[in-house]
Amino acid sequence: MIYLTRRATFSASHYYWNEAWTAEKNEQVFGRCANRNGHGHNYTLEVTVAGEPDTVTGFVVDLKWLKEIMEREVLSAWDHRHLNLETPEFAAAIPTTENLAIAAWKRLEPSVKAAGGARLSRIRIYETPEIFAEYRGEA
Amino acid sequence: MIYLTRRATFSASHYYWNEAWTAEKNEQVFGRCANRNGHGHNYTLEVTVAGEPDTVTGFVVDLKWLKEIMEREVLSAWDHRHLNLETPEFAAAIPTTENLAIAAWKRLEPSVKAAGGARLSRIRIYETPEIFAEYRGEA
Amino acid sequence: MIYLTRRATFSASHYYWNEAWTAEKNEQVFGRCANRNGHGHNYTLEVTVAGEPDTVTGFVVDLKWLKEIMEREVLSAWDHRHLNLETPEFAAAIPTTENLAIAAWKRLEPSVKAAGGARLSRIRIYETPEIFAEYRGEA
Amino acid sequence: MIYLTRRATFSASHYYWNEAWTAEKNEQVFGRCANRNGHGHNYTLEVTVAGEPDTVTGFVVDLKWLKEIMEREVLSAWDHRHLNLETPEFAAAIPTTENLAIAAWKRLEPSVKAAGGARLSRIRIYETPEIFAEYRGEA
Amino acid sequence: MIYLTRRATFSASHYYWNEAWTAEKNEQVFGRCANRNGHGHNYTLEVTVAGEPDTVTGFVVDLKWLKEIMEREVLSAWDHRHLNLETPEFAAAIPTTENLAIAAWKRLEPSVKAAGGARLSRIRIYETPEIFAEYRGEA
Amino acid sequence: MIYLTRRATFSASHYYWNEAWTAEKNEQVFGRCANRNGHGHNYTLEVTVAGEPDTVTGFVVDLKWLKEIMEREVLSAWDHRHLNLETPEFAAAIPTTENLAIAAWKRLEPSVKAAGGARLSRIRIYETPEIFAEYRGEA
Repeated sequence: MIYLTRRATFSASHYYWNEAWTAEKNEQVFGRCANRNGHGHNYTLEVTVAGEPDTVTGFVVDLKWLKEIMEREVLSAWDHRHLNLETPEFAAAIPTTENLAIAAWKRLEPSVKAAGGARLSRIRIYETPEIFAEYRGEA
Repeated sequence: MIYLTRRATFSASHYYWNEAWTAEKNEQVFGRCANRNGHGHNYTLEVTVAGEPDTVTGFVVDLKWLKEIMEREVLSAWDHRHLNLETPEFAAAIPTTENLAIAAWKRLEPSVKAAGGARLSRIRIYETPEIFAEYRGEA
Repeated sequence: MIYLTRRATFSASHYYWNEAWTAEKNEQVFGRCANRNGHGHNYTLEVTVAGEPDTVTGFVVDLKWLKEIMEREVLSAWDHRHLNLETPEFAAAIPTTENLAIAAWKRLEPSVKAAGGARLSRIRIYETPEIFAEYRGEA
Repeated sequence: MIYLTRRATFSASHYYWNEAWTAEKNEQVFGRCANRNGHGHNYTLEVTVAGEPDTVTGFVVDLKWLKEIMEREVLSAWDHRHLNLETPEFAAAIPTTENLAIAAWKRLEPSVKAAGGARLSRIRIYETPEIFAEYRGEA
Repeated sequence: MIYLTRRATFSASHYYWNEAWTAEKNEQVFGRCANRNGHGHNYTLEVTVAGEPDTVTGFVVDLKWLKEIMEREVLSAWDHRHLNLETPEFAAAIPTTENLAIAAWKRLEPSVKAAGGARLSRIRIYETPEIFAEYRGEA
Repeated sequence: MIYLTRRATFSASHYYWNEAWTAEKNEQVFGRCANRNGHGHNYTLEVTVAGEPDTVTGFVVDLKWLKEIMEREVLSAWDHRHLNLETPEFAAAIPTTENLAIAAWKRLEPSVKAAGGARLSRIRIYETPEIFAEYRGEA
């Protein structure tokens, strides 16, 4: 089994805000991230697929295809966007790094499954070089 | 002469928009950066001062002091902020990396001058690891 | 399950020396690291906690809290210190990257456990960008 | 159990070409990588061994020894080489990042096994900072 | 004056060989780089232009345009190529990092000049993260 | 004119202490750096030479030679050493990053001058990725 990983970057805005809370509670819990004007990051999306290399091509998956689905399913929706205001998954949920990792999995997993051969193994989202979240799917 | 540099990072949102233009013109010139919801970056601020090392301390400037003025004059105003909506220098001017470098110079130069000894030599702002602008003052 | 990671850096001195050995044996086994004057590194401490994101906050843990316990339990004891001479865990044991990873786990695990919700999943210590050790706890 | 990792870099050329295919098929599948003149990369080889730290030395393995076997078994054969033309494992197989990871494992595993104490746990090969493949052995 | 820089990467093969010399002399001077099968690198091309930010756009140059000329004038000719065998500037000259910097300048300078406004200020080529050459044009 | 740069890393200990001052004064000025047990860093030494590429080799200088003089003149004296206790230049002067840059220049400049052809142009010392000092020689 080989774990093959590709990285891409995107730049997006977000804020942390719970509509059910007062402004004071939001600021107490979320600190500077509660600024409703938003702030932003250069995120890194890291996608790992697992499978056996094809004996003819030596590929687990074609990395050009992997780049294409990362762009089509994730970057086209998130890059140069305000995550709270422009993406359906964060209309209600808070766009933490943790939730971004789960959301990227949900966006990519059907395409990997449909292609057959390899399975989606791991998603990592870096919010900064110092902070990242990793999701490996259910179970 | 020694050139001493300190880096710090901040996360901010911005967009590119000229109020005097139509939406079409803004989108044509600024592309994805014209999204009024904003997008964001992990910026790096790199400040270089020039001077002779003090013969007693070996310091051109005290790096703790340099960190403090970077935080007080720049990061406290820009970090976790929307540059267009929350900073006076970008109420009208467009917050390009070029303009951020000039604005950081204007924010830091008086403190360096007041301290005496070393002079501000260079400001670099990285918008991403692939794009940066550098300003060395007038003349 | 989400694996959430935060990094921090610290600068410390150390040497490798076994008191039960002759100087010759120490130099033979430990080479340049046996220099009793010590040498040093910019270490990176990477802490991973595992848990479910809270449905209200989207947090596995509050990253501000994680930063605080990393500073209180590890960095305050190790940063700008000589590990052999100033930390109880290396009074006798040799401060290899391997042993630093185990010691950081022991320092952080009680605080993570006491907070409830998430568990400590992994500690990584980078001695240089080329060398790192990882510990995931007992069994 | 500690997982101890060491990195090294090497520079090599390669191309992707299946002799059983027409030139058109090769170009269709492999794109720019099918250029028979070759192109190249600064690869990173990352080797992880797993074991208990020795109670006397604090070492899982001696990192100088690990560096030596990485140089002797892998870098001396691959660094500043054309992988397709000069290495036996890629006389027929295509030198994809996936296949490089498996080949590095086969080159290193006997030496780690012969040394006793620690076992080879993981090989990672980075073709670029954006693309890497990982192999953890059979089963 | 602002110095605005953009980076891009390319992967290429090369070797060092002087046709006027014997094989022995080539190996003596160029060492492992004299291997005629070639070896390769992930190069970084760093292009700096200098000028005043436009008062309306805040741009020294449009970074999308800068990316386009870097791709059209340099990357399309050098990426995934064997520099000795496939580029006219290295049919005779040796593709050292120094010569690559000068050649990139010659490829880019006419486009920057034709565009007006800003001038080409500096080219840097990184062969590895440890080695780079910089050219600033003829005095 | 080409500016050719090579980087190397070394690990060393140091402290900041002025013998003419009281312990209180040292702690007030130097803070945590005044710890007499020492602390340490992974330093990066960056050496730039300037010259014309040789028309036959394409070299400003032979990078293997540059590596050798960096190891002989600087790394052999500083790597895995305590700078205050083991290097003559810091028996009295304080080993700040500024002073390290000047000291590295003095160690390297005679060898570059003796070799002829290129001149030493710039020394950079990174104490951490966030702090560096640069020296370009006497006017």
